[in-house]
Amino acid sequence: MFIVMSRGHTEGELKGILDRLSEMGFSGHVSKGVERTVIGVVGRTYPELRDTLEFLPGVDEVVPITKPYKLSSREFQPQDTVVRVGDVTIGGAELVVMAGPCAVETERQVLDTARAVKAAGANIFRGGAFKPSTSPYQFRGLGEEGLKMLAMAREETGLPIITEVMTPRDVELVSRYADILQVGARNMQNFVLLDEVGMSGMPVMLKRGMSATIQEWLLSAEYILSQGNHKLLLCERGIRTFETYTRNTMDVSSIPVIEKVSHLPIIADPSHATGKWYLVAPMALAAVAAGADGLIIEVHPSPDTALKDGVQSLTFENFKRLMAQIVPVAQAVGRRVMASV
Amino acid sequence: MFIVMSRGHTEGELKGILDRLSEMGFSGHVSKGVERTVIGVVGRTYPELRDTLEFLPGVDEVVPITKPYKLSSREFQPQDTVVRVGDVTIGGAELVVMAGPCAVETERQVLDTARAVKAAGANIFRGGAFKPSTSPYQFRGLGEEGLKMLAMAREETGLPIITEVMTPRDVELVSRYADILQVGARNMQNFVLLDEVGMSGMPVMLKRGMSATIQEWLLSAEYILSQGNHKLLLCERGIRTFETYTRNTMDVSSIPVIEKVSHLPIIADPSHATGKWYLVAPMALAAVAAGADGLIIEVHPSPDTALKDGVQSLTFENFKRLMAQIVPVAQAVGRRVMASV
Amino acid sequence: MFIVMSRGHTEGELKGILDRLSEMGFSGHVSKGVERTVIGVVGRTYPELRDTLEFLPGVDEVVPITKPYKLSSREFQPQDTVVRVGDVTIGGAELVVMAGPCAVETERQVLDTARAVKAAGANIFRGGAFKPSTSPYQFRGLGEEGLKMLAMAREETGLPIITEVMTPRDVELVSRYADILQVGARNMQNFVLLDEVGMSGMPVMLKRGMSATIQEWLLSAEYILSQGNHKLLLCERGIRTFETYTRNTMDVSSIPVIEKVSHLPIIADPSHATGKWYLVAPMALAAVAAGADGLIIEVHPSPDTALKDGVQSLTFENFKRLMAQIVPVAQAVGRRVMASV
Amino acid sequence: MFIVMSRGHTEGELKGILDRLSEMGFSGHVSKGVERTVIGVVGRTYPELRDTLEFLPGVDEVVPITKPYKLSSREFQPQDTVVRVGDVTIGGAELVVMAGPCAVETERQVLDTARAVKAAGANIFRGGAFKPSTSPYQFRGLGEEGLKMLAMAREETGLPIITEVMTPRDVELVSRYADILQVGARNMQNFVLLDEVGMSGMPVMLKRGMSATIQEWLLSAEYILSQGNHKLLLCERGIRTFETYTRNTMDVSSIPVIEKVSHLPIIADPSHATGKWYLVAPMALAAVAAGADGLIIEVHPSPDTALKDGVQSLTFENFKRLMAQIVPVAQAVGRRVMASV
Repeated sequence: MFIVMSRGHTEGELKGILDRLSEMGFSGHVSKGVERTVIGVVGRTYPELRDTLEFLPGVDEVVPITKPYKLSSREFQPQDTVVRVGDVTIGGAELVVMAGPCAVETERQVLDTARAVKAAGANIFRGGAFKPSTSPYQFRGLGEEGLKMLAMAREETGLPIITEVMTPRDVELVSRYADILQVGARNMQNFVLLDEVGMSGMPVMLKRGMSATIQEWLLSAEYILSQGNHKLLLCERGIRTFETYTRNTMDVSSIPVIEKVSHLPIIADPSHATGKWYLVAPMALAAVAAGADGLIIEVHPSPDTALKDGVQSLTFENFKRLMAQIVPVAQAVGRRVMASV
Repeated sequence: MFIVMSRGHTEGELKGILDRLSEMGFSGHVSKGVERTVIGVVGRTYPELRDTLEFLPGVDEVVPITKPYKLSSREFQPQDTVVRVGDVTIGGAELVVMAGPCAVETERQVLDTARAVKAAGANIFRGGAFKPSTSPYQFRGLGEEGLKMLAMAREETGLPIITEVMTPRDVELVSRYADILQVGARNMQNFVLLDEVGMSGMPVMLKRGMSATIQEWLLSAEYILSQGNHKLLLCERGIRTFETYTRNTMDVSSIPVIEKVSHLPIIADPSHATGKWYLVAPMALAAVAAGADGLIIEVHPSPDTALKDGVQSLTFENFKRLMAQIVPVAQAVGRRVMASV
Repeated sequence: MFIVMSRGHTEGELKGILDRLSEMGFSGHVSKGVERTVIGVVGRTYPELRDTLEFLPGVDEVVPITKPYKLSSREFQPQDTVVRVGDVTIGGAELVVMAGPCAVETERQVLDTARAVKAAGANIFRGGAFKPSTSPYQFRGLGEEGLKMLAMAREETGLPIITEVMTPRDVELVSRYADILQVGARNMQNFVLLDEVGMSGMPVMLKRGMSATIQEWLLSAEYILSQGNHKLLLCERGIRTFETYTRNTMDVSSIPVIEKVSHLPIIADPSHATGKWYLVAPMALAAVAAGADGLIIEVHPSPDTALKDGVQSLTFENFKRLMAQIVPVAQAVGRRVMASV
Repeated sequence: MFIVMSRGHTEGELKGILDRLSEMGFSGHVSKGVERTVIGVVGRTYPELRDTLEFLPGVDEVVPITKPYKLSSREFQPQDTVVRVGDVTIGGAELVVMAGPCAVETERQVLDTARAVKAAGANIFRGGAFKPSTSPYQFRGLGEEGLKMLAMAREETGLPIITEVMTPRDVELVSRYADILQVGARNMQNFVLLDEVGMSGMPVMLKRGMSATIQEWLLSAEYILSQGNHKLLLCERGIRTFETYTRNTMDVSSIPVIEKVSHLPIIADPSHATGKWYLVAPMALAAVAAGADGLIIEVHPSPDTALKDGVQSLTFENFKRLMAQIVPVAQAVGRRVMASV
């Protein structure tokens, strides 16, 4: 952390700051430049220290230099994290595809979709039993009944299940049925939920919040990792910008950024990012080309009757076509698509 | 809801859509323009219908026209909602000021601040016992111990207490100590929490999410109102933009917008919106001039030693000065500042 | 400027950087912290240096500390800039109001509006003869014919004229008719135009770009100031965010920020910022309460027939009412509204 | 265009609107729904009509349905536009790569880079002689001297030249040396410049503005097309969001969106979009996978001594490596990389 002194500071103010640093157990390293005097704060600094230092007389600005996330950083752990879920390995050489309906609606819909995505080559089955819904008047999911249908789909197809958990008290319930707990974008900073899924020891996929910086996303990851749970995946699902043609703007560059600054696997969700089915395939391919470790795709037997987010779901036929397109793109960037179980 | 047909649609497609509408219990009103054919959908439409209709062959776009929020709209309830908390009335002719420290730290800090803000004219005491913290390594609040200190402050000063509740399971606990439950920006779409504070029957202040549109904010309000709880306040606390000088960008225009489209009282939080103490006063005055029903201001006995958000807190002296500035601005826009209890 | 070394850097890399700095005429001040080694770069640094330094082996990050704007900063000039235009003084104790139609349409419209806004107390008359238009199919202004009508209005009312200039080759022409040149938001980074209005020596009002940070805005101001033209006003007119209810989001906090970091007068434009006439009055009052030095307001004899931006224009009656509301708010924050000529 | 009546409108208001429409040469088609009455406006509507109609008593909202861009839309021209520049064809089956330094600095730098990018397979040479620079204190380009160096590079390598023109009066000058005129992001709404490059008849590449919606971008394209100039390319170069890790956020989804709504070729600029050289390759591959018709990449002999934007430039070696990676990704999505001349 650096303290940039204001141009007209006095020697007394400089001394006052050095004394205060020393009281707090730090030492200050003064550097007088042509335009500015700067004090390097030596010691184990922490984010709140900035607030304290900015108050001292003579200070113009305090500039932190140490990234606030640790356990999720590549500096802390240089080698890639690989998460194993049953026979599926996420974050290794092979690209993983998760697919299924946005919301679980009926046993028939779930089983048909699970069979279809498996046949097309998906590795993990997705489906929502608890659905975050912007309006209280919309469908909010089948709850435990939906979880049971997902478990049925796993039994039949062998595909592991990923499904969302929305609140701390449901973590235990959802963990009984699911293989991976998904924390949604709206809950990226639901810190009590992060603690709880951290403590559960279950594999977790943490979606990026709609207006979260990459740094905040990694700090939320830090909540889960600091509970000792390292089975963690990150998922880019689009951020909110001024553009209204797409539902969100998929920040494809977050994929190579995460790859650079963190060891955690990164999954891309082109369905939620775009909100339009005809953009799902090109954005899925873009994510793979940019280095994503996996994809999560919405698939529905008849998108036009879906209770939620039909417009962004692929038909079985379109999903099959996409899977065929993914193979050569993955190969082109030195990656294999994982064989389905 | 309107269906805009694509330019080259066929008569068969038009007929197909009308048949489908009729199957679903709607009727379609066809309007052939010079450039486009449009179908007005007659019946009680709902948001998901859009997804379904966009899939039909021949459709270019579906345009919803009915605002999705109801209970929070001024169309539904033309007269202003007025929330009573003890002797304090929020949303009426008088401007209400809530003040106190960001986080509860010590009994001494709480009591001193409560006395000081009361002396300066505040009507409600604020302070956080459960603190959302971007990083797991930062201070997260004193929990119930902090709530007890807040209750002590109420006993001594008579000021009602507003404090944040972060998770559904704490609603009961926090309700035992607080007079108003605050739902923070990060929890604006924590739907389970919204249900729970709705069911509690307690007065609630719902902060706008960092990247929430006004419409989404009102839909979150709808969750609380639809549980039968009408003691609801909205709070503008800044949205996230590309500007980095301020922590957030305070959307002052949301104040007159809410006033126009909703009957709910609107409170402004210039402390979180700006993140810099020297911007709090001008932005508090701006909010009052724009028509806010109240303010919530961070005040701390010694901001430079605060455990959280010191940089945005006013000293007792600065708060007193601000209160003196608010009086004439409120008068200038036809409002009185409520007398302290 | 600081160079933050990567955690695993070698002594050779450190030496390499110090040698390079010395080659370039700087000296490096090494500071070894607990977590990081940092080099303070001593000498007269410049923004591009950052790019060069980030390339050197062993470097993790380069952190600039000197603000890149100089002439526009309060550090450079502590006392407020006051711009005189005829008898009008902008940036002093008195609040200035500019008003008039978005676009000049007819002689009748211009003269009627000029008389009406003068009668209501406006100090400067605004009107566009060259109009930036998102679409080539929309009205683009009357050009020189419009400038002549503005000059006629000045002759009749005595009010100085502010009008937009859109391209370098029109600077001379517009300067013949106008008293203040306006550079629009879309041209904030039209650097050739900035040079040209700088060289003209005319008073200039520089609008903030739709997605410009405050720092970029001040750097654009720097273009004009560095041509020796100090008759410069800044104008906040809303930034682009994800919110769609208002046309832009008026960044009211930029007003006290500019007041703090710069000596230049700051004008607020609530008409363009909101895009809705019924939000103009509350946002004008908010801007005054936040400390604006002036307002620029769209007024039209019959907004419903306006060729451009009718929805955001006030009628004569509404403008008169607003002027009456501004007086007490200005007084409440220690400011007088300037008397009309 | 639709007029949505407010809930409590009177029959008189409805009649008033229909009369007004008829006066203006439109007819109104009334549709009474369960919740709302809506009037379809029949006739050749235009954007400003919305403003006029929103003023009429009884109107709640006016909803335009016709997209405001015409010549750039795929509805207007279903087949892809293909632009020919010398032997290079842009927008056809083959992927085109433009490469070169951000700014022209020396003859040596230009010639070396032109030879290197040609050898690696680039089809067009890029380089800036006129450079937009946020600060007046930064390098602003060599001007005509730089243009001459670019022409020299073309003579030697045979590669066509693309270079930026910043102001209307330079269009003629730049056209004497360049093969394609580039309009930069900051000038996307410099309407006089758009007119001028439109009239020049030269091939033009129009970059998307930093905060421009896709619709606004296409409206700017409309300016050029409506001058009769159809040799037009679009270029996605990143939009401004709250994320600060990357310089901009590359909106990769704009590539398939443009492909769907427009016939114009779309080029991606991962260098400016990311601002970091190590993100250029993954984002270039992502753009190709998403369907881009071409790439524009910054390459510099020694990025660490570049006068501008070194941090985002590839070395010759890195560019060669990228070209080798592009080939299989392009093939994977059914595209060939065009052979260099």
